[in-house]
Amino acid sequence: MRTMTDSETRAFLLEGTRTGKLGWVGKDGRPHVAPIWFTFDGDDIVFNTHEDSGKFKALRRTGVACLLVDDDAPPFSFVKVDATVSLEDDLVAVRSFATKIGGRYMGEDRAEEFGARNGVPGEWLVRLTPTKITAAAEVSN
Amino acid sequence: MRTMTDSETRAFLLEGTRTGKLGWVGKDGRPHVAPIWFTFDGDDIVFNTHEDSGKFKALRRTGVACLLVDDDAPPFSFVKVDATVSLEDDLVAVRSFATKIGGRYMGEDRAEEFGARNGVPGEWLVRLTPTKITAAAEVSN
Repeated sequence: MRTMTDSETRAFLLEGTRTGKLGWVGKDGRPHVAPIWFTFDGDDIVFNTHEDSGKFKALRRTGVACLLVDDDAPPFSFVKVDATVSLEDDLVAVRSFATKIGGRYMGEDRAEEFGARNGVPGEWLVRLTPTKITAAAEVSN
Repeated sequence: MRTMTDSETRAFLLEGTRTGKLGWVGKDGRPHVAPIWFTFDGDDIVFNTHEDSGKFKALRRTGVACLLVDDDAPPFSFVKVDATVSLEDDLVAVRSFATKIGGRYMGEDRAEEFGARNGVPGEWLVRLTPTKITAAAEVSN
């Protein structure tokens, strides 16, 4: 195992359609993990979610999250990001990032379609500001 | 999006070297997610971990976990398992599953090597008994 460099870490997180596995704590204190589509805004990780979702309510209540991205083929690598959370409902920003994120995961030809679908009232932009990053490459070596 | 059948869900979880993304809650109440290697024992999901790890201490303290497995290419699918946790340190069982899990992720020719490495005092078998399974196929369709 070795530690990735900062630029390697960023490239790893942005490679292809790799999803983020978002961890949050529910109202009852239980852990939850769900896949999200994300991108970067500067050094922050950003994604869209609806205000009715369990993850949104938990993130608003707790202000903290964890994001994991991994490569699940030998020799196995992963990046774990512990983060604080801030929330924005400015529709211009929500739609702008929904378009960018849609393009990443569904292809540039469908970016506008996803921007329009997710850039509507009720959708929020969630911003994760990293507080600790663990970036482990070639774990099984 | 559609819901997977039970047999499809099990096959999805066991496909190739797909890792589980384990979610737990730290002592400070923060969420954590890390990749694990796992297999099934009956209807339980089992994996090995060391008693000095953060995840082990959290699982012993809280008795609950969440496991996510996803396919991060279009059309995107995932299985989320909410579970209760039980812990076993019987070395025969620890080594037996360490061997099976090593074979799954590193190939049958290296199964015994991983069984020997992870079947030692201090290593535990963690058993996740599902309490709720969410199995969503073709999420972006």
